[in-house]
Order: sequence, then C-alpha cells, then structure tokens
Amino acid sequence: MTIIDLNADLGEGFGDYTMADDRALMPLISSANVACGFHAGDAAIMADSVRLAKAHQVDLGAHVGFPDLLGFGRRRMQIDTDTLTHYVTYQLGALSGFARAAHYPMTHMSFHGALGNMAAEDPQLALPLLQAVKAFDAGLIISTTAGNAVERSARRLGFKVATTFLADRAYDRHGMLVRRGLPGAVIHEVAQVSQRVIRLLTQGTVESIEGDILPMSVTSILLHGDTAGALTLARQLRRDIEALGIKIVPISRH
Amino acid sequence: MTIIDLNADLGEGFGDYTMADDRALMPLISSANVACGFHAGDAAIMADSVRLAKAHQVDLGAHVGFPDLLGFGRRRMQIDTDTLTHYVTYQLGALSGFARAAHYPMTHMSFHGALGNMAAEDPQLALPLLQAVKAFDAGLIISTTAGNAVERSARRLGFKVATTFLADRAYDRHGMLVRRGLPGAVIHEVAQVSQRVIRLLTQGTVESIEGDILPMSVTSILLHGDTAGALTLARQLRRDIEALGIKIVPISRH
Amino acid sequence: MTIIDLNADLGEGFGDYTMADDRALMPLISSANVACGFHAGDAAIMADSVRLAKAHQVDLGAHVGFPDLLGFGRRRMQIDTDTLTHYVTYQLGALSGFARAAHYPMTHMSFHGALGNMAAEDPQLALPLLQAVKAFDAGLIISTTAGNAVERSARRLGFKVATTFLADRAYDRHGMLVRRGLPGAVIHEVAQVSQRVIRLLTQGTVESIEGDILPMSVTSILLHGDTAGALTLARQLRRDIEALGIKIVPISRH
Amino acid sequence: MTIIDLNADLGEGFGDYTMADDRALMPLISSANVACGFHAGDAAIMADSVRLAKAHQVDLGAHVGFPDLLGFGRRRMQIDTDTLTHYVTYQLGALSGFARAAHYPMTHMSFHGALGNMAAEDPQLALPLLQAVKAFDAGLIISTTAGNAVERSARRLGFKVATTFLADRAYDRHGMLVRRGLPGAVIHEVAQVSQRVIRLLTQGTVESIEGDILPMSVTSILLHGDTAGALTLARQLRRDIEALGIKIVPISRH
Repeated sequence: MTIIDLNADLGEGFGDYTMADDRALMPLISSANVACGFHAGDAAIMADSVRLAKAHQVDLGAHVGFPDLLGFGRRRMQIDTDTLTHYVTYQLGALSGFARAAHYPMTHMSFHGALGNMAAEDPQLALPLLQAVKAFDAGLIISTTAGNAVERSARRLGFKVATTFLADRAYDRHGMLVRRGLPGAVIHEVAQVSQRVIRLLTQGTVESIEGDILPMSVTSILLHGDTAGALTLARQLRRDIEALGIKIVPISRH
Repeated sequence: MTIIDLNADLGEGFGDYTMADDRALMPLISSANVACGFHAGDAAIMADSVRLAKAHQVDLGAHVGFPDLLGFGRRRMQIDTDTLTHYVTYQLGALSGFARAAHYPMTHMSFHGALGNMAAEDPQLALPLLQAVKAFDAGLIISTTAGNAVERSARRLGFKVATTFLADRAYDRHGMLVRRGLPGAVIHEVAQVSQRVIRLLTQGTVESIEGDILPMSVTSILLHGDTAGALTLARQLRRDIEALGIKIVPISRH
Repeated sequence: MTIIDLNADLGEGFGDYTMADDRALMPLISSANVACGFHAGDAAIMADSVRLAKAHQVDLGAHVGFPDLLGFGRRRMQIDTDTLTHYVTYQLGALSGFARAAHYPMTHMSFHGALGNMAAEDPQLALPLLQAVKAFDAGLIISTTAGNAVERSARRLGFKVATTFLADRAYDRHGMLVRRGLPGAVIHEVAQVSQRVIRLLTQGTVESIEGDILPMSVTSILLHGDTAGALTLARQLRRDIEALGIKIVPISRH
Repeated sequence: MTIIDLNADLGEGFGDYTMADDRALMPLISSANVACGFHAGDAAIMADSVRLAKAHQVDLGAHVGFPDLLGFGRRRMQIDTDTLTHYVTYQLGALSGFARAAHYPMTHMSFHGALGNMAAEDPQLALPLLQAVKAFDAGLIISTTAGNAVERSARRLGFKVATTFLADRAYDRHGMLVRRGLPGAVIHEVAQVSQRVIRLLTQGTVESIEGDILPMSVTSILLHGDTAGALTLARQLRRDIEALGIKIVPISRH
C-alpha cells in the first residue's frame, strides 16, 4: 500500500450548534463527507464546508441521511423506498449547488447513520438508492464499508467505490461494525486506534472484537469529527501513516 | 405581442398536505415555479413536479423562499444577507438535482413570498441574492415584477429577465402590488381577471386599484395555483390568450 | 347499548395547510383527538380546535404522534423508549396549555399512526408510554382499539379506557386492523360503513375482511376527518345512530 | 439588598447538540429559564432540565421564543400577534407538562432573543403576549429587563415581575441593552463582569457603554449558559455575592 485516503464526516452543526471543529479538522484530512441539511448541516455550514474543502484541496462528498435532525439521523425510519430515493437526490443536489457555485467538484457520497446501516444490510434498499445516485451523477465515488450491500450494489451499477475503515469502531468476526451502544463498539484510546490503523496499513488485517484476525482491504480511513479528541487522533494517524511512507491522497485521485 | 408565457407556482404541498391540483394545472401552463423545501415542497413533490414539467414540456424554475414552512414563507424574517445567499444556493441546488436526474433543464428562478417582497424593495438585498444565483448558474432567467429592485439587479448582472403580471392581484398607481390582506388586493372573479389580462395583452396597460391606467410590459402571466378556482381561471386565460391569436410559449423560448 | 361516543381526529393541518374541514366536522362529533404539533397540527390550529371543542361541548383529547410532519406520523421510527415518553409528555402538555387558557378540560388521549400501531403491538412500549401519561394526568381516558397492548396496559395502570371502532377500516379475523395500503383496508362507501356501524351497535359484531363474524364491544366510533366524504359519513352515522335510539355522548360522560 | 436571584438560560441544546454544560451550571444558579422546543430545546432536554431544577431546588421558568431553530430565535420574524400568542401558550403548556409530571412547579417565564427584543420595544406586542401568559397562569413571574414594555405590560396585568441584570452585556445611557454584534455589547472578562455585579449590588448602579453611571434596580442577575466560561463566571459571581453577605434566593421566594 502506497496511498490512503483520510476521511471525516464534517459540517454536522446546525444553526448556532456545532458538532466538531471543522476548521481545524479540514487541513488534516484528504476527503470530507458533508451533511446536507437532513440529519445535520444547514446551508450556511455547507457553504463554509465547501469553501474549506476547496481551500485545503480536500475531496468533497455528500453525507446523505434521514430527515431527522432531532435524532441526528441515527434512528431507523420506515420510509418507502421511492420517497427515500428522492431524499437522496435532494441532498446530492443541495450540496452540489454549493460545489457548483464554488467551482469545486463534488467527488463522492456516502450514507449516514441509520440510513447507512439499513442500506448496508439490505440490497433491496441499497440498489434503488444507488440508482438514484447514478441518475444524478454516475461519476460519484461511493464511500462505504467493504462487503456490505452498498458496496455490492455500487459495484454492480458500475460505480467506483472507496472502502472505508472506521478507525475508532470495533468490527465483529464477520467484518461488520459492532453496533453503537454495545460495549466496546467505540474505541476511545488514541494509542489503540493508532495501533489498529498501523496493523491495517502494514498487514492488511483488523482484530475483531472477539479476537479474530480478519483480512481487510480499504482505500480510506474514516475519522469521526464529533468524537472528543478527533483532532488529536487525526494528527496521530497522519503521523503514523506518514511514518510508514504511505501518502495521504484524496479518493478521487486513487 | 405575439407570444406570452403562462406561469404558476407549483409543488407547494408538503408530505401528505396538498396546496393545489398540480397534475391538472401543469398541462395548462408554459412555465412552473417549484417550491424547494423551505417555505413549501418536499423531495417527493419536487421529483413529481419535475417529472410533470418534463411530460408537458413546461419550463422548470426554482421558487426560492424563507425557511418557514409554518408561515408558508409569507412572514418577513431578518436574516443576515450572507446566510440568505446560502439559502438561495441550497434551494437552487436541490431542485437542480431533480432536474439533472430527470435530464430536464432548470430554466429560471423567482423569489417567493416575504423574501420576494423584501428583495423587490431593497437593492442591497436583491443584488447579493442574485449574485448567488449567478454564481450557481448565470444562464437562469429571473422571473419578477417589472420595475422592482430584483429586476434592476438582475439586468445589472446580465441575467435574462421574465417580467410577470400577477393576473389575480391588484396593482397600485406606482405599479406595485397591493399587499395581501388589504381590501381588493386579490381579485377573485374570473371574468375580472380575464378582462385585465385581455387589456394587458391588447393595450399593454393595467388599471390600478385607484383607477389609473398604467402602461405595463410583461413577458409572463402568473397564476396562483393555491387559489380556489385556479384551474377554471387557467382554462379561461388560455382561451382568452388563444382567441387573441397570441401563442403561449415558455419563457426560455422567448 | 344506549349511548355511544362519536370521535374524530381533528386539527391535522399545519400553517397554511389543511387536512379536513374541522369547523364543519366539530358540531357532528362528541369527542375530538387533536394533533399536538409533532405529526401534524400547530399552535394556532390547536388554539382553534380547543375553542371549537368548547363551543360545541365536544370532549377534547390529545392525539400524540411521532415527530415526523413530513410523514404525517405514519412512518415507524426506532426511537428509544425513554425519549418517546418525553415526546408524549411534551404533546400532552402543549395541548393542555390551550385547554387551561380556554378553561376547558382535556379529557382523553390516543396514540396516532405509526406510534399507535407500534404501541398496540408491544406492551414493552405501551406500558412506559402510558406511565408517562399517568405521571402527567392519571384521570385522562385512553382511547384505543379493544384487545391491543395499549388497552391492556391502560387497564393495568388503572386508566379509564374508551374502546374505539374504526368505522371506515377493515378488521381481520383476529380483530386487528388491516394495514393501510392492503386491498380493502379502507372502506370508502358510505352505505357500507353505515351498515357496519349499525351491525356493531345492534348486534355487537363486526364482519372481518375474511368474512368471519367477530364480537366487538366498543364505546366510541372513530371517523377519519381527512377522508374525502368525512362530513357526509359523519352526518349519515349520526342519523343511523339516532334512528336506533342511541344517544351520542362524549366519552367523559360514559 | 439582602437577597438576589442568580438566573441562567438552560436547556438550549437540541437532539445530539449541546449549547452549555447544564448539569454543571444548574447547582450554581437559583432560577433557570428553559427553552421549550421552538428556538432551542427538545422534549428529552426539557425533561432533563426539569429533573435537574427539582434536584437543585432551582426555580423553573419557560423561555419562550420564535419557531426558528435554525436561527436560535435570534432573528426577527413578522408574525401576526394572534398567532404569536398561541406560540406562547404552546411553549408554556409544553414545559408545564414536564413540571406536572415531575410534581415540581413552573414559577416564571421570559421571552427569548428576537421575540424578547421585539416585545421589549413594543407594548402593542408585549401586552397581548402577556395576556396569553395570564390566561395560562396569572401566577407566573415575568422575568425581564426593568423599564421596557414587557415590564410595564406585566405590571399593568398584575404580574409579579423579576427585573434582571444581564451580567455580561453592556447597557447604553438609556438603560437599554447594546445590541449583540455591536462592539463592546458582550463583556467577556470575568473580572469586569464581576466588578459590574458588585457595583450593582452595593451601589445600585451600572456604568453605561458611554461611561454614564445609571441607577438600576434588579431582583435577578442573568448569566448566559452558552457563553464560554459560563461556569467560571457563575462560580465567581456566587463568591462575590456571598462575600457581600447577600443570599442567592430563587425569585419565587422573594
């Protein structure tokens, strides 16, 4: 491995509310997933995120979620699939408006929170959502966990895919994320996250929560901007990656 | 005058709520202003509006308003201008997403309700809002009442402008709309609206609420889809216009 | 049977949007379930509904739903139960504010849409939600379908219960509502609804969608205000009920 | 002066967003103004705020604002007064629901942000809003700046009034708050705020931004929970007040 993308969810504030220090985080990453006003984000924050992404030449992606600001898009909603495809189009369009106004390309998209989890599990949901993405822009890169329904549907539709490693989240022996809320699901110690990333980059493996060693092949490492210590972690991972002689390169240039 | 555009505000429902019979109105008009999810409209309705516009080859425009669903965008809000420019970009982007997915062009935009009134009165507001439109797409046509700050700013920025006549609204002697809520502001009788449109098309004048005869030059006649009797009125106006030998042509082809 | 309550969901508009002709419906019913601003309804509509209920001496109840205006509260949401109990309290409080200001009692509550369906199926949800209702006001009557988890939990907590018959909805052989969207779930013909209500009131039975005759004991007949023909149906049912010598009496006086 | 109330705006988060460290601030104050879900706050946060207020025996008040979460209620909205009175009732009712469920009294209310500023300037707005408060509960204490239209209307309607000193905000020579955004409007240094509070408590005066010494008589000192350093400031002011031999007592017990 010679290149890797360092990715984070950004623009997750709303009005006077902030979720992370986007200004400090943006220079540390190579691609950003920007909330589009459904589960988080608003027009002013999106404009700012696009401006920052351009300033730091960070890849700009849409982070598409449920219309549930109150639940930050983390609560499952039973919405008919047709309607959901329109929610996807709306959010892609909204962020692309800022990209267009800033003369900066929107390169990728990913699904956020509960919508992401539901699509990851269900090809009958993932496929139509990704068809909506394709109708909007077949050139977008789909950013997702390797091996799930989103990846498979995306490849089937001919999308370029960025497979992500969630640096601070535990995986089970099947390579699936351990659900938030379960013990050990989120890894808080920087040293431990750092170690996991180094193992992944040098050996291509991850240790599951049960202790198994799983092969894992990814093109992107995902940080959570809303985690306390996100900046510290981002700086540490940059150092780790660079120490390995690996270049941090936006996914659009892989 | 040999051609005129027949325009209506559409897509003003939200979720299970409907505001007008869009399906019946779309075939009767030549251009539509579609709400973008701020003062009205949602992703599913926008998708449907774009589909209908394409099916009937009606010009598709964005109807951009305040983020105030509860007030239908008709209540003035003191929002700083920078933030407002981002609200404009967001809404343009959102609708353009559906246009792009449907391979159908978005041709124009107009400001809705209180935002429209505030911009019409204030060049210091109209100009930056239209600069945001220009940054998004300098080729959009700006649809507005002739003689106000929006028209002047739009022309100054080099936009093509569609000047609209609000068929069912009274004008004062200065050619400005009589405010909703004042007596006589809204004209409810089809015969009277019909007469006003015929006068405008044949003589280029409108009779003000005070009884003065004003010259008025427009390229578009605006219907309100949410008015009871909107369909009856639309059908009558089509007959009137065609009886005068004038063709109903979308603004993008003027 | 000598008395029956005639109940309807009201106040389901939002801002400029209307869902039903509440002014015409209110004089025809004896109890109203008023939306509280989550799935529908807003402060102005709630104030108006309370005023109308008082004017016609109709029992006033809170119709409590999911925070999903876009989906009219009809989409299931996976929200943790503690949070949901707070949503219940908030909505009860909000409507009771108008009741208090109008010096008119709030007498009952019911769960709307997807929240109602989920609580009906799951005692582990119904019980804590009703405990929240009890903490707010143990004297409220709980309005629900007989035999479901809401009824059982309500009785267990010592609430007075109003059992409702959904006049225009089909039941299956287990006495459960046939899901909206399935064929035959909603009965549109007034004559058929009328016949079902007469059978219920005279024989205490309902014919299931499979053709079985089920015993059913109810204290309230529920109309849907948002159905086309709601007024016609309400008038017909009043005539039917009165022709049987049964009095229409609000649930609080049963 | 022997007693003073120490008051703060709390519960201003929304969903996963936080605005201040309410848990740390609550033990330091004697009365809290809790956001009610319009400009900030949600049901879960309100429930938590009421619980905390009860645990620390802090007076519980409703902080009533515009329906503008995106603008945190700080943007003026032109809403007709009747509708606004219903917004007031709704918010009072919603918070009172939690108070009722917790068996803890709601003692006061105040207007937030732009609504507060507009009411402070305009008796024709303040009076009907306070009439709505009175219809809901004539026993509530109205918390506001001395000398404005809210205070005058409140006294005219027979309310008990708590006059507040905004500890970290500059006043002009007329005793009015210097608008946020103007230079010097917000005082950031703890030492300076502390000095101003001591002067007020010992001499009954405040120094205006122009340097004039104004008499000011207040019963409550208002902290802003959303300010960086709110906790440090609260602790300092408690020490200052206690060092002067003045007791910190909730407004309901004055």
